[in-house]
Amino acid sequence: MRIAIDAMGGDHAPKCNVEGALAAAKEWSDIELLLVGDEGKLLPLMAARPSNVRIVHAPDTIDADDEPVKAVRRKKEASMVVAGRMVREGEADCMISAGNTGALMTTGLLVVGRMNGVERPALAPMIPTMDGRGVLALDLGANMDAKPEHLVQYALMGSIYREKVHGIAKPRVGLLNVGTEAMKGNELTKLVYPQLAELPIHFVGNVEARDVLESNCDVLVCDGFVGNVMLKSLEGTAGSLFGVLKKEFTRSWYTKLAAAILMPGLKRLRKIMDYKEHGGAPLLGLNGLVIKAHGSSDSRAIENAIRQARMALQNELIHTISMGVRGTK
Amino acid sequence: MRIAIDAMGGDHAPKCNVEGALAAAKEWSDIELLLVGDEGKLLPLMAARPSNVRIVHAPDTIDADDEPVKAVRRKKEASMVVAGRMVREGEADCMISAGNTGALMTTGLLVVGRMNGVERPALAPMIPTMDGRGVLALDLGANMDAKPEHLVQYALMGSIYREKVHGIAKPRVGLLNVGTEAMKGNELTKLVYPQLAELPIHFVGNVEARDVLESNCDVLVCDGFVGNVMLKSLEGTAGSLFGVLKKEFTRSWYTKLAAAILMPGLKRLRKIMDYKEHGGAPLLGLNGLVIKAHGSSDSRAIENAIRQARMALQNELIHTISMGVRGTK
Repeated sequence: MRIAIDAMGGDHAPKCNVEGALAAAKEWSDIELLLVGDEGKLLPLMAARPSNVRIVHAPDTIDADDEPVKAVRRKKEASMVVAGRMVREGEADCMISAGNTGALMTTGLLVVGRMNGVERPALAPMIPTMDGRGVLALDLGANMDAKPEHLVQYALMGSIYREKVHGIAKPRVGLLNVGTEAMKGNELTKLVYPQLAELPIHFVGNVEARDVLESNCDVLVCDGFVGNVMLKSLEGTAGSLFGVLKKEFTRSWYTKLAAAILMPGLKRLRKIMDYKEHGGAPLLGLNGLVIKAHGSSDSRAIENAIRQARMALQNELIHTISMGVRGTK
Repeated sequence: MRIAIDAMGGDHAPKCNVEGALAAAKEWSDIELLLVGDEGKLLPLMAARPSNVRIVHAPDTIDADDEPVKAVRRKKEASMVVAGRMVREGEADCMISAGNTGALMTTGLLVVGRMNGVERPALAPMIPTMDGRGVLALDLGANMDAKPEHLVQYALMGSIYREKVHGIAKPRVGLLNVGTEAMKGNELTKLVYPQLAELPIHFVGNVEARDVLESNCDVLVCDGFVGNVMLKSLEGTAGSLFGVLKKEFTRSWYTKLAAAILMPGLKRLRKIMDYKEHGGAPLLGLNGLVIKAHGSSDSRAIENAIRQARMALQNELIHTISMGVRGTK
């Protein structure tokens, strides 16, 4: 299993990317890690040189504020693009990047390429739930306007991913909607509901945004626009509430004291809501595995993304998805 | 100003509806309140009989679990339908109901009727913001699929409402989107953005769901599906977080003690997030004023909705909206 890592992408690159890769290389001897990036910058960071880590030199980088399509087209020697090319040409089985999300989606589409039969790849991050189980939501922003056939493929790909990577038998697949009754929703959800019900998956029907955090499904299907609004609403509400709590808890010496006593509980809650705990977001529907790690990934987050990639490769995720997609045609 | 109140709608009807109306009648002598409902049930609740409160007998009621369209069509003598008919026939200037939301939207469309030139009325509740200012969001569920011209009217109606009812000069109108740049979003938002920019309103551009609670606009425009998902995501996140906090805070006697010290702060936060504080949600774009009060309205919430109706009527809301809509044709 050869996993290419965009060593230059992310807020803490290349240091944390290299550290995470070295830790993973030590833990799993059955993987080969290809650190793609500027050799001059990477070599000094590698005190150890495990036999299953190799540097692939790529002199250029794509920055956080680069315009995605332009950057991917022009910077052919950027670490992200080189890693994508390695996947396309079979030199790597997977690529991981904590870099520019838009550029990575573009790399997926233009460099790695779409899977045969998939019209729209989907970005599928995990949303944390209160019980710690999490829900894989897709699409959360790769495509803004989805057709019913896209949602059908999202449902199928998400279900296979949860089974193969997280070991969940019969993952519960829900359709994000404004009510739980079958005929609720907009044109898109009304059209796709009966189609989801016919798939070889465990479709649990419509799911309301208010119940997502309560873990009422394992895979949540939605179009990229609605999914993105839901996720940001969730993040924003949590952020605003924590902000007000902090203000209230630091009003006086005795509220500070009381807050200190409650700190372990607050920290547990913070940890539940922490996206980094949940690994990277796969881009599903491509001709190879592409994983988007969080932009602020530290070495542990990179190691987690590698763990996730290893699991997916061991269980032949891409092949299974390809078979699944073909089965519904 | 004659305000019809659906005395039988809501979880605490008719008691709280009558109490709220009596309190409002006492406070404002320039309004006449028409309590629409079963006279036999209403009379015993009226210890006082102010001269500006009148009972309009309606023997039937629409229940929370009634199928909206069927109920409105068949139950012609239901309190909600009778109140709607009074608005249509000019016997009342406004109606307020805390009953079945779907049935009220249907009553608005089929009984009160659409305003000339408005294709889709919108449900426009206030979303609480951290600074207490609140944002009027529309549409939050009257129509699932919106066209650009509908969003244009929502923007216009919302802006006029905030000005006339809340006294905000130049309300900031934002478009709910997945990013702040002008060209972000789905087909709908891309099409409508330049149209909003040309309206005689203070359009502040795209607004992300994560910033809504931070009060970055006074009117938030979106289609009913996305708006509903956003609102429920917000409610659900707040509910889930409060739930976990409660569990953490009652773990032991000393966390309970600490939580008691922080209680005033928690209560302030709870109050900010309380929808009842923000009055009822108008249904904008109808041939008369229709206000949806929260289903769990107590007498204070009913009184607040009456205050809101009075303000709207004093400032000729419906007439101004009608002029505004005509102006953009």
